[in-house]
Amino acid sequence: MTELHHPPSHLIDAAIASALAEDFGLVGDITSHAVFNADHVSRASVVARRQGTVAGVAIASRVFTTVDPGISVEVLRHDGQRVDPGDVVLRISGSTRAILSAERVALNFAGRLSGIATLTASYVAEVADSSAAITDTRKTTPGLRALEKFAVRAGGGRNHRFGLNDAVMIKDNHVAAAGGIASAVNRVRESIGHTVRVEVEVDTIEQLVELLSVVEFVDIVLLDNMSLEQLEQAVRLVNGAMVTEASGGVTLATVKQIAATGVDLISVGALTHSATNFDLGLDF
Amino acid sequence: MTELHHPPSHLIDAAIASALAEDFGLVGDITSHAVFNADHVSRASVVARRQGTVAGVAIASRVFTTVDPGISVEVLRHDGQRVDPGDVVLRISGSTRAILSAERVALNFAGRLSGIATLTASYVAEVADSSAAITDTRKTTPGLRALEKFAVRAGGGRNHRFGLNDAVMIKDNHVAAAGGIASAVNRVRESIGHTVRVEVEVDTIEQLVELLSVVEFVDIVLLDNMSLEQLEQAVRLVNGAMVTEASGGVTLATVKQIAATGVDLISVGALTHSATNFDLGLDF
Amino acid sequence: MTELHHPPSHLIDAAIASALAEDFGLVGDITSHAVFNADHVSRASVVARRQGTVAGVAIASRVFTTVDPGISVEVLRHDGQRVDPGDVVLRISGSTRAILSAERVALNFAGRLSGIATLTASYVAEVADSSAAITDTRKTTPGLRALEKFAVRAGGGRNHRFGLNDAVMIKDNHVAAAGGIASAVNRVRESIGHTVRVEVEVDTIEQLVELLSVVEFVDIVLLDNMSLEQLEQAVRLVNGAMVTEASGGVTLATVKQIAATGVDLISVGALTHSATNFDLGLDF
Amino acid sequence: MTELHHPPSHLIDAAIASALAEDFGLVGDITSHAVFNADHVSRASVVARRQGTVAGVAIASRVFTTVDPGISVEVLRHDGQRVDPGDVVLRISGSTRAILSAERVALNFAGRLSGIATLTASYVAEVADSSAAITDTRKTTPGLRALEKFAVRAGGGRNHRFGLNDAVMIKDNHVAAAGGIASAVNRVRESIGHTVRVEVEVDTIEQLVELLSVVEFVDIVLLDNMSLEQLEQAVRLVNGAMVTEASGGVTLATVKQIAATGVDLISVGALTHSATNFDLGLDF
Amino acid sequence: MTELHHPPSHLIDAAIASALAEDFGLVGDITSHAVFNADHVSRASVVARRQGTVAGVAIASRVFTTVDPGISVEVLRHDGQRVDPGDVVLRISGSTRAILSAERVALNFAGRLSGIATLTASYVAEVADSSAAITDTRKTTPGLRALEKFAVRAGGGRNHRFGLNDAVMIKDNHVAAAGGIASAVNRVRESIGHTVRVEVEVDTIEQLVELLSVVEFVDIVLLDNMSLEQLEQAVRLVNGAMVTEASGGVTLATVKQIAATGVDLISVGALTHSATNFDLGLDF
Amino acid sequence: MTELHHPPSHLIDAAIASALAEDFGLVGDITSHAVFNADHVSRASVVARRQGTVAGVAIASRVFTTVDPGISVEVLRHDGQRVDPGDVVLRISGSTRAILSAERVALNFAGRLSGIATLTASYVAEVADSSAAITDTRKTTPGLRALEKFAVRAGGGRNHRFGLNDAVMIKDNHVAAAGGIASAVNRVRESIGHTVRVEVEVDTIEQLVELLSVVEFVDIVLLDNMSLEQLEQAVRLVNGAMVTEASGGVTLATVKQIAATGVDLISVGALTHSATNFDLGLDF
Repeated sequence: MTELHHPPSHLIDAAIASALAEDFGLVGDITSHAVFNADHVSRASVVARRQGTVAGVAIASRVFTTVDPGISVEVLRHDGQRVDPGDVVLRISGSTRAILSAERVALNFAGRLSGIATLTASYVAEVADSSAAITDTRKTTPGLRALEKFAVRAGGGRNHRFGLNDAVMIKDNHVAAAGGIASAVNRVRESIGHTVRVEVEVDTIEQLVELLSVVEFVDIVLLDNMSLEQLEQAVRLVNGAMVTEASGGVTLATVKQIAATGVDLISVGALTHSATNFDLGLDF
Repeated sequence: MTELHHPPSHLIDAAIASALAEDFGLVGDITSHAVFNADHVSRASVVARRQGTVAGVAIASRVFTTVDPGISVEVLRHDGQRVDPGDVVLRISGSTRAILSAERVALNFAGRLSGIATLTASYVAEVADSSAAITDTRKTTPGLRALEKFAVRAGGGRNHRFGLNDAVMIKDNHVAAAGGIASAVNRVRESIGHTVRVEVEVDTIEQLVELLSVVEFVDIVLLDNMSLEQLEQAVRLVNGAMVTEASGGVTLATVKQIAATGVDLISVGALTHSATNFDLGLDF
Repeated sequence: MTELHHPPSHLIDAAIASALAEDFGLVGDITSHAVFNADHVSRASVVARRQGTVAGVAIASRVFTTVDPGISVEVLRHDGQRVDPGDVVLRISGSTRAILSAERVALNFAGRLSGIATLTASYVAEVADSSAAITDTRKTTPGLRALEKFAVRAGGGRNHRFGLNDAVMIKDNHVAAAGGIASAVNRVRESIGHTVRVEVEVDTIEQLVELLSVVEFVDIVLLDNMSLEQLEQAVRLVNGAMVTEASGGVTLATVKQIAATGVDLISVGALTHSATNFDLGLDF
Repeated sequence: MTELHHPPSHLIDAAIASALAEDFGLVGDITSHAVFNADHVSRASVVARRQGTVAGVAIASRVFTTVDPGISVEVLRHDGQRVDPGDVVLRISGSTRAILSAERVALNFAGRLSGIATLTASYVAEVADSSAAITDTRKTTPGLRALEKFAVRAGGGRNHRFGLNDAVMIKDNHVAAAGGIASAVNRVRESIGHTVRVEVEVDTIEQLVELLSVVEFVDIVLLDNMSLEQLEQAVRLVNGAMVTEASGGVTLATVKQIAATGVDLISVGALTHSATNFDLGLDF
Repeated sequence: MTELHHPPSHLIDAAIASALAEDFGLVGDITSHAVFNADHVSRASVVARRQGTVAGVAIASRVFTTVDPGISVEVLRHDGQRVDPGDVVLRISGSTRAILSAERVALNFAGRLSGIATLTASYVAEVADSSAAITDTRKTTPGLRALEKFAVRAGGGRNHRFGLNDAVMIKDNHVAAAGGIASAVNRVRESIGHTVRVEVEVDTIEQLVELLSVVEFVDIVLLDNMSLEQLEQAVRLVNGAMVTEASGGVTLATVKQIAATGVDLISVGALTHSATNFDLGLDF
Repeated sequence: MTELHHPPSHLIDAAIASALAEDFGLVGDITSHAVFNADHVSRASVVARRQGTVAGVAIASRVFTTVDPGISVEVLRHDGQRVDPGDVVLRISGSTRAILSAERVALNFAGRLSGIATLTASYVAEVADSSAAITDTRKTTPGLRALEKFAVRAGGGRNHRFGLNDAVMIKDNHVAAAGGIASAVNRVRESIGHTVRVEVEVDTIEQLVELLSVVEFVDIVLLDNMSLEQLEQAVRLVNGAMVTEASGGVTLATVKQIAATGVDLISVGALTHSATNFDLGLDF
């Protein structure tokens, strides 16, 4: 399997800097400074409190060394690995002041990203019997898209487009304005570079049939809010001529059946917009 | 009631700029540009798809006008207001290209912040019969603390400290290092400015009793992971000498009983770290 | 024809801010300040000194209004339009100090981008009889990629990928490491999202034949440094199964013949890395 | 000879960060990540493909180590040195992924700056028999002035002023507004600090004669668009009382004759605004 | 005694970067570059020229290593220590060019911050016999608040609030708008988090009496511009129910008497807004 | 007289943004928000409390409108004007919350810059009978150089060089390294652009005599720490061949006598490093 692709390091560093600035204000951790001397050192562990898939572990590690390059961190569970309650994810040693100053920011990153990875892994597990892949959306937390899409990868998901810029997605409003699917697709063909894929959303079988008339210029069809029967019919109609993606109202309860319709991809906004925190603690 | 305190506008603008940069890359919305002419205009509405409390509506409005100052936005439901499914939150008119380019970022802000406000309001409603208030934590999404704490206010919650810098919080590790609660409190007194409040975490009644020996130097006691019986006992022992705050494992199922113990505050990490998206759509 | 897609405005504003900071230092235009009073106003025109295609005109206009929002600018020749020597591109009126302070930065943008647009238009004109399009590369000036790729569009060219992130490009080193073209393509298929196109570089007909064995997973073939005969043979072999792109040593003298081979695209690094300044002057 | 003065390192680092951000987007080099394992290492060389003078070699080296501090780079040809086709400029070893991720940005810097240095060196060579020096202008690529003026130095040229702020340049518009050259010079004298040099542009011998009436307050005369005869006459008239600078329409074909007129300096906008890429390749 | 709490390192680094950018422009130290070869090394010392308390020594040290990581710096007098004329504060060795390039910025930081620390220490010494502490205000140099408040700590002072955000300060305008002190205090109670202290300014004994009616909701009283007699009376009236802070027109000549009135704190705007430079020199 | 040259507006805006960020933290002015309703408006005035010369008035005005574009500000005393105690400098009307939120930052700018302008004006007044001008140094507050040098201009002073980059200053260390003054001057001549002035520091008449041997390559001589007799002798020896600048230990008590020696300029570090706050208040 391909190794997990980590986000560019400058984006990680910028996110860490922003988070530390929030937590430190103009003076930093006044409590730990008052209580501990500069030479007080500790050993601590970041420990999983539940079962799941971790992500953001390397980022959490970098939070500690950003606060104090003298801190040493050992990574025991890597991004994308499964953990059980009690598993030690990171072992940390160094200045107690610095460890406590970094703790919350480190856990905020790892907790959120592991939450996304764990939720993604749940969806991926549900569709394991099928050929369908789980993919994310652009419904990410503002400012954290690169990191949250990384967490989806860590959970076994695939990334959909990263922004408005790197793939075409023709939706109902575009179709209406262009006066039909074929017309919208043709407008796009005139202006889009050859390295850009074209995806078109359809809500009905009728629209899909219209789309098939220009199928040679379309890479992916988004089957939005269709019933299982419609999805099956759509997959048959497409017959491999486009990648098929199901979306809309997908839950852990319904994803397996959706996958069974034969679609290639299932996109799930909840992976990033409704993942809850994965509980990690720092034990001394 | 005091009006809702919005975050400083430069923080809002910075968050919007960061989110748009993510979504636009080096070229922006290639689909809408290809399909719509520059002079194509539309009217659209941001509509609530479920019941709850909105937050981030003003921010979403500003996303649209940031993308195109020519867009006009009317705010129909303000931050902190309750909405029902179908309620129109924003009415937008202007360049179709610009509206579609801004849509996802606007909804990502409003969806996340409304999710937090709605969850907060649920907790607040549970404790309405008591004198307890609901408060947040520092378990916020990296980079969005100011906005997420604003969403807690919009939902009727109170803000806990904003960072490591603006209040003292003495926890178990500090106590251990200082050789006792009284010793830790005294160390803090030596160095902390007079405008800074001091909070101390206790896990047991024994620790609380020790804390009461230095109560004149402590403003707030955090009663961590205590049973309902312990909380009641603690409230009696404190007897108004400190603000009492319960924390640890608080859920919507347990918060009412915790409030009934007489504590002043209940802090809930889930408000910010486990709120799910509030569903809002953009209808043309 | 689709309207020209301008770069996101925040990228334009950032580029302008950076350029003005360079030119102003800590005090700005000491000469104009010393010589002109604050209320001295002028009319001036940005005039083309040669024939070509302009780009960056809107950016130049924005430079003037950034330096002084009181300056009014009328755009007479828009980005992407042809101009002849003497044509007035912009008419400007306002504070003389401000106009002179902005002049050099405004002309530096318009001169460089019009140079790129003009060179691109020359290549596009050469291939007008064919079905081939001219496309750019990632050989852009550091920091100006979004603007330079816009200038290519203004000149009638198509954009290739914008970065390492938005399309796959398998080159010789990748093939060598993977142990063959098919192997490299397969590795990529395992990890790449469904919205990402895959391009593979081949230097020989033998490699092209190997590539055709996995043609269903490849969107574009880059035919690198091939002779006209090889290109013709390649186009026949591909037979519409992939987009064909010729590259390597393309000049204005050779591009027409290359286009005649039937390739779909011809990529030209010189468009951005070797365009020379387009001469524009500011006349009072 | 004085060593070459490199730009301040924070400007280099900022330019590199900006260029990498453009090329990496939110995910980086998806191709190299998919094909190579993390532990795959390579040796590579940056090699000159033509003859000229290199600049930006140290910057290119820093691009590689910015992407991955584990890459080791040996500089074989330093900024300002002449190279022949085939000369190895940099030897690089380290992670293959990182080398390929950094390649294009590194070459974009070195290619552009070496192009400027090589063009500058050509001009400098043309005037080697004379006492004239070649100098640049403010016609630089927006955002890269510090680096491009460095490249001019690397090619043996002198730097003109860096911005509007560090020297006075009185041009025709200033003269017209002030009501004459002497009046403009006097206005400047009233407000300019003693560390600032004053240059005045003249287009005719008559203007030069007027300028000589205030020569004690002027350091440099810019002889703009004059014929060779006019230049000779101007040099005789100035007779060492000011530095003489010729400008306007200078080309490689004309520069030698201009130098022969005895002017001290010849400023050439083309050095920065019309230099073409110097071809460098990365060979594995 | 608690160790001195240094500002967060990212704030120090940002301040240093900003100061170096000012001093370097687009090319850096042209004099030292012209005169010294790259391999010329020196030893130098930062030496105190007068008596006082130093602050910013660690920052000055970091300026040198920021300009050139190859410079080694030994700190002989630490932030918060007293120095006499001639005392060596830093010993520096490394590239002469780099030392001279960094000199002015390093001394500007250390001179200003030591000036503040020295002035603070003078006030602290005056009140040494009393129980009063000296505290700063928000009257700091724009952009340097974190560093200047650190310098106050280095001089033995206490920090007042860091911004408008971390403590409540009710002043005369607030009282007037709210219709009285009690009303203003009550408005604040409704909206402020439990971790925030409340301070109220009073100008007269009558206002103080009114304030005492809501004393359970107020932590600190600011006794503004009161006579010594009024201060004594106020301290008696408060009787430990609030922290008492005197402010207004405090000078080195009056502070001792003010302290003798029994107030807990004396705030002095001059500490930061009117400290003069502490003379430090760099000797080779 | 030439109008006062204001700093570039992007530097002003950046300084204001930095100062507001310090003062607002993550939530802004919690007191004013709690006490005033959004629609509460006020009129207020910035009033001088002492006599002097104001600077930073336009910046203070911009602070108010940055916090709330709805605030209207009338400037009654402009930068560079003399004021007496009680003079109204700015009239402000608008949201009370916004006025109070902006107050401290606005006054911090105007207080510091007016302090510098007032001190400068005192020095300028002392030398009014002479032909000497007062000039500043690079001993400015880190991050505020452009604004502080503007304040010097507002007080009637001249600006010395703005950084290490825009003029040559050869000091004792340079001379020692180069093996003599003439040698140092010659090294500089080889590398410095023609728009850059050269200043040389001498401490003795012997050094001045040596300097006169290369006087044709030197623009300014810095006469450092010389007695009045030495200064007079130096002025006679230089005899107009260079600008003469006295520096070192200049005070208001000594500056008149120094000016009487006939030097052209007197540089005073205290203008920026030891100016104290100019007292301005905000009256409602």
